[in-house]
Amino acid sequence: MRNLLFEKLTNAYEEMVITRRYLHMNPELSFQEEKTAKYIADFYGDLGVEVRTGVGGNGVVARVKGGRPGKTVALRADFDALPIQDQKDVPYKSTVPGVMHACGHDGHTATLLQVAKAIFELREGLAGEYVFIHQHAEEFAPGGAKPMIEDGCLDGVDVVFGTHLWSLTNAGTIEYLTGPVMAAADRIDITIHGSGGHGAAPHQTKDAIVIGAGLIVNLQQLVSRRVNPIDSAVLSIGSFIADNAFNVIADSAKMGGTVRTFNPKVRDLMEKEMKRIVEGTAIANDCTIDFKYTRGYPPVVNHKTETEFLKSVADTVLGSENVVESTPQMGGEDFGYYMEKVPGTFFFTGAKPADPYPHHHPKFDFDESAMLIAAKVLGAAALDYQEQ
Amino acid sequence: MRNLLFEKLTNAYEEMVITRRYLHMNPELSFQEEKTAKYIADFYGDLGVEVRTGVGGNGVVARVKGGRPGKTVALRADFDALPIQDQKDVPYKSTVPGVMHACGHDGHTATLLQVAKAIFELREGLAGEYVFIHQHAEEFAPGGAKPMIEDGCLDGVDVVFGTHLWSLTNAGTIEYLTGPVMAAADRIDITIHGSGGHGAAPHQTKDAIVIGAGLIVNLQQLVSRRVNPIDSAVLSIGSFIADNAFNVIADSAKMGGTVRTFNPKVRDLMEKEMKRIVEGTAIANDCTIDFKYTRGYPPVVNHKTETEFLKSVADTVLGSENVVESTPQMGGEDFGYYMEKVPGTFFFTGAKPADPYPHHHPKFDFDESAMLIAAKVLGAAALDYQEQ
Amino acid sequence: MRNLLFEKLTNAYEEMVITRRYLHMNPELSFQEEKTAKYIADFYGDLGVEVRTGVGGNGVVARVKGGRPGKTVALRADFDALPIQDQKDVPYKSTVPGVMHACGHDGHTATLLQVAKAIFELREGLAGEYVFIHQHAEEFAPGGAKPMIEDGCLDGVDVVFGTHLWSLTNAGTIEYLTGPVMAAADRIDITIHGSGGHGAAPHQTKDAIVIGAGLIVNLQQLVSRRVNPIDSAVLSIGSFIADNAFNVIADSAKMGGTVRTFNPKVRDLMEKEMKRIVEGTAIANDCTIDFKYTRGYPPVVNHKTETEFLKSVADTVLGSENVVESTPQMGGEDFGYYMEKVPGTFFFTGAKPADPYPHHHPKFDFDESAMLIAAKVLGAAALDYQEQ
Amino acid sequence: MRNLLFEKLTNAYEEMVITRRYLHMNPELSFQEEKTAKYIADFYGDLGVEVRTGVGGNGVVARVKGGRPGKTVALRADFDALPIQDQKDVPYKSTVPGVMHACGHDGHTATLLQVAKAIFELREGLAGEYVFIHQHAEEFAPGGAKPMIEDGCLDGVDVVFGTHLWSLTNAGTIEYLTGPVMAAADRIDITIHGSGGHGAAPHQTKDAIVIGAGLIVNLQQLVSRRVNPIDSAVLSIGSFIADNAFNVIADSAKMGGTVRTFNPKVRDLMEKEMKRIVEGTAIANDCTIDFKYTRGYPPVVNHKTETEFLKSVADTVLGSENVVESTPQMGGEDFGYYMEKVPGTFFFTGAKPADPYPHHHPKFDFDESAMLIAAKVLGAAALDYQEQ
Repeated sequence: MRNLLFEKLTNAYEEMVITRRYLHMNPELSFQEEKTAKYIADFYGDLGVEVRTGVGGNGVVARVKGGRPGKTVALRADFDALPIQDQKDVPYKSTVPGVMHACGHDGHTATLLQVAKAIFELREGLAGEYVFIHQHAEEFAPGGAKPMIEDGCLDGVDVVFGTHLWSLTNAGTIEYLTGPVMAAADRIDITIHGSGGHGAAPHQTKDAIVIGAGLIVNLQQLVSRRVNPIDSAVLSIGSFIADNAFNVIADSAKMGGTVRTFNPKVRDLMEKEMKRIVEGTAIANDCTIDFKYTRGYPPVVNHKTETEFLKSVADTVLGSENVVESTPQMGGEDFGYYMEKVPGTFFFTGAKPADPYPHHHPKFDFDESAMLIAAKVLGAAALDYQEQ
Repeated sequence: MRNLLFEKLTNAYEEMVITRRYLHMNPELSFQEEKTAKYIADFYGDLGVEVRTGVGGNGVVARVKGGRPGKTVALRADFDALPIQDQKDVPYKSTVPGVMHACGHDGHTATLLQVAKAIFELREGLAGEYVFIHQHAEEFAPGGAKPMIEDGCLDGVDVVFGTHLWSLTNAGTIEYLTGPVMAAADRIDITIHGSGGHGAAPHQTKDAIVIGAGLIVNLQQLVSRRVNPIDSAVLSIGSFIADNAFNVIADSAKMGGTVRTFNPKVRDLMEKEMKRIVEGTAIANDCTIDFKYTRGYPPVVNHKTETEFLKSVADTVLGSENVVESTPQMGGEDFGYYMEKVPGTFFFTGAKPADPYPHHHPKFDFDESAMLIAAKVLGAAALDYQEQ
Repeated sequence: MRNLLFEKLTNAYEEMVITRRYLHMNPELSFQEEKTAKYIADFYGDLGVEVRTGVGGNGVVARVKGGRPGKTVALRADFDALPIQDQKDVPYKSTVPGVMHACGHDGHTATLLQVAKAIFELREGLAGEYVFIHQHAEEFAPGGAKPMIEDGCLDGVDVVFGTHLWSLTNAGTIEYLTGPVMAAADRIDITIHGSGGHGAAPHQTKDAIVIGAGLIVNLQQLVSRRVNPIDSAVLSIGSFIADNAFNVIADSAKMGGTVRTFNPKVRDLMEKEMKRIVEGTAIANDCTIDFKYTRGYPPVVNHKTETEFLKSVADTVLGSENVVESTPQMGGEDFGYYMEKVPGTFFFTGAKPADPYPHHHPKFDFDESAMLIAAKVLGAAALDYQEQ
Repeated sequence: MRNLLFEKLTNAYEEMVITRRYLHMNPELSFQEEKTAKYIADFYGDLGVEVRTGVGGNGVVARVKGGRPGKTVALRADFDALPIQDQKDVPYKSTVPGVMHACGHDGHTATLLQVAKAIFELREGLAGEYVFIHQHAEEFAPGGAKPMIEDGCLDGVDVVFGTHLWSLTNAGTIEYLTGPVMAAADRIDITIHGSGGHGAAPHQTKDAIVIGAGLIVNLQQLVSRRVNPIDSAVLSIGSFIADNAFNVIADSAKMGGTVRTFNPKVRDLMEKEMKRIVEGTAIANDCTIDFKYTRGYPPVVNHKTETEFLKSVADTVLGSENVVESTPQMGGEDFGYYMEKVPGTFFFTGAKPADPYPHHHPKFDFDESAMLIAAKVLGAAALDYQEQ
């Protein structure tokens, strides 16, 4: 049966690429993925697969029943894009200014659609039930996973698998890990309220840009001095906006950022110490600073049994030399929510292109052949799980 | 004759306020002041005064000849606004989002129009000739003064006077000073080219925001450590833009700023030392930084004889206790260009309102009664200069 | 035999405390430990144990042969103190100004002396041979371990064990770990050569203190931005000296610091990136900066088999609930040199006092009862190893 | 009479140099100048001049009465040295390690002694009385001027003159200025109380060096952002001491510094804003910081009449082209105390050597020929003042 599945997937590869490139050219931001959701739903509709739309937002869930009873296996792919200007020079470059599939969700979706189609075509010979979760809004907390779960996408599900294409590890490999594999991802919003004025009269103002610059510099000490070096933590300020005439002194400055941690105590420490530095900065500069710390996704914690199962499946698909234990990633993922409800595992599928860039980079791309590998491992895991 | 002039000006005060408020509600950015220029030209046209439009850009110049020969006196007012969002709560608040008369040029224009009207009405009894220079684009280098001069606005002119309403000194006073009175105003443009990426993976990036913040902090040492404390210098970064998603690391960051100095050696030093710090920052962070230093207006250097003349005129208008020697201002002004060609002086007219804010502040306003004082001093100076 | 050993150790506890307190009151700096070495050698001499002094410096090595052939087991304790002023208020406070046993080496030595004495007294009934390595100069690279090894202290040795009393974990427990357990510890020396002068004339100088302060602030980004957050790294500047009159501007400033890493690539990265930041800082400030990066001890990497053996021994001594897997420590230790030659393991013995301070703190102290636990685990390991 | 005086001074030049070099080789720190005071007193004693020692500390005051009544003119020279290591390579290099005449007070003293000797020799032909104030402890607040005045050194004095040799302006010139000529000089003492520990465990500490570095960096904004750029202000941290082992994290750090201002409001602002930044830094870092701001010497404010008199005297001595109006100096001087009691002026005597260094530099030296010029101007002023 696996052979049949792999044959179908191999044949579907060209279509996978077409789908991926179509999505790549037509990216939609988190919570605005209406056309993408319709595209997915239409795909299932055209096949004749039972599909639910509007699940917890723009989510789409398709279900395929096998010819005999068995376990219910969920596979998940996300489909939203990022507010980044595509800087690649390829025919399938994003056509939407300032919006880009810079994380590979287009590939996840193209992969899962073909896995679903193959399973649908083979359904008579299969046991159990297969749930294809197409999730919106992974990139933007509070994310799509939570409302989709609340809207029933995991009902009756025994196990959940998901993967992420990874532009920095070789195509042909997958990476697995038990325990924490992706970080808690929190959001920071800071607004400095100084006092603006003429660029030539600093003494009559409280310069919000200089205050903000000092704050960012001082925040570097959180990771370098206040967190146990054995623990992992990241604080990144991704956005700094004080958009004025050049000869004005800024009245205010806005910043947005993210904090990543694996350990709840470190997460608490980061929030507490940031608050302390913000407070001290406001006092030193006699200004007010709004500080909002929004807890985002929990860490993604893989279950031991399901991770070992996935590894053994992957060994048979790729050869054990291509299935490697990974280290944790500081990236956040709302896949963790699924695994708070049902067992499962989240793994990485190597997809390094010739000229690799990190995820979220304006020149990000991936080796499309990795989609076929992801499809095979996900599909084989779904089928083999019936034997568990 | 001065009495007649003052009577006319006093009667014109209400119209001055109406004009000023109209302009305040309809501000236009530097080099885009087409409606304002038309408003001014129409004012002169309606009176029947000879007026030239399109002088060196949007500049407008009106000329009035007296009944007998004499000297040619130029009075200048600027009329452009700033890219600042008006945050005042007044009926005459700016109706243009993000654009505001935050420096008082609306008041300068309203004042000069009424001075011109009064002189026009009294022209038969006056000697000499009067040139009313309505200058566009004072706020944005290379400014309007230079092209207006090149286009002939000073032709035949013997002396030039100008004033600036000043929101931080009391209405009822004027301030004069011989020598440097306003600073050289240069422009800085900096773009940091780091390397963007995912907010969770700083080690794969060169964080343009952290690099920029460090640069701004280190630039503070220019004034605090490298300039002779006896000299004056200002470096202000007015704009810092790295507008990304919160969970991205910035690929680049753009800054704009201004440098103010009185002394050419200090000006050179500031440019050289900024360059040095920018270069060191690029090396320390293994990135590239574009740095452009654009020399703007020269300092405004008042002529001794004309300044003493203006002071003596003002003494008779306001009483000598209200005519005070000022200290230099770090603000820039392209009025300096006029005084490179003809003698003259530039003075400040106190216009402190009940709730004063510095110039270029989003809540900037001024005491409108100061317009009448400015009008009287400018008008009296123009008339008395014939006796010089 | 273990029972006999434990009985002897229990009886020796009071003497252990006396020895430890004597050493605590008489600390000697690394490479200057002559009196301490003599004290140790005399202890063995008084017992009649064969002892070698001057091993690789101030090192002392005693050897005890059992009554029958067997393996040769080495136990190691270090005995140097630190340049820290003792700020504790206890009767056994250091009597040497500015020198203090602030890391517990006094306890290590007191422990090992009693283990050696007990084994010496029981030697007839024991197999194998026992080597007691009293090492000088652990605190100060290049350390005492390397020259002692070169001078033969490990000759014929089959296995080596060592422990560190630990003031931050509970007495009654020990902590073990396979693989990297302590970090590579490198040394940094930085001298900033600015240009001094009068405190009132910064523009005539290059202020070495401001340059140094900026450098330290910018170095925080090494750990916060340039090292993979999954890896561990520490950069600490422990010393900053620019000792001038208050009204002078500093001509130069000297700093000393340490870098800790587990991973050779991260070690290389830290050195390379520090160099880059130092270079950029010198350029930005038009000064010269001497930068010396001295590689110190390698990481301490515990051997798997010996660590598992030690754990099993400790389980029987303390109960397995008191034998916990530890996390790596960023501290450096030259114990790693021994394990580059022979297999072994280095473990931590909990010694948290009522009012705990971190190691190297001026108020550091430990729970002396932990010495008995360390003695039992080391002694039992030495005896049991004959059965391996 | 002036010719006689100048002849005597010219003849005394060699002795001046010998005295200066002797003092240069034997410098004494402020308030410890016992040998220097004795040297001065002996000089007068040997001549037979009435001399008082121990005036307000180590001060020495000699008085010479002329042959007829007149005014009482005081001339002042200071004689203390600095805690700086002499780095010059000259035969007369300081013989006292770490102590150096790095400001020229040796020259002031050598000059005044010869002026006094010449006047003493000419006394019969002179009117009035001459007071030679040899002041200790100018370099170290609270200084010697205040207690010497309290101890009567200005009793009966009509006018006071003083000069400073200046290594950065040409020999052969003097500089004068009415009004503020030297700054108020205040002292800052800061101690950061962090929490020390092991260099490898930053999270268990509060790193006093990193806190101190951040504070110094943030203090740069005082001058660059908070003081009106038209005003002058200096803040220099001259000393930063955290003297630990390289692998320790600093428990505390001590800094000393100076603040210079001319304007009382700016002085208040500097103190208030420093306090604010220190407070914010303590909060941001959860530590305590001791901050002590000690007001030192007042500004030196030259009297108009006496300054104009001095200029006119100097014109006749040097030619008016060599007598230039100076700009204010940010250096402090306790000469201001004298002029709070009696009128006077303080001027600068150019003394630039071939290889000039700023005052307080370890390689500071001056052109000794300037001593003769200083002597002539001081002497001529003293004599001419009788005609006032």
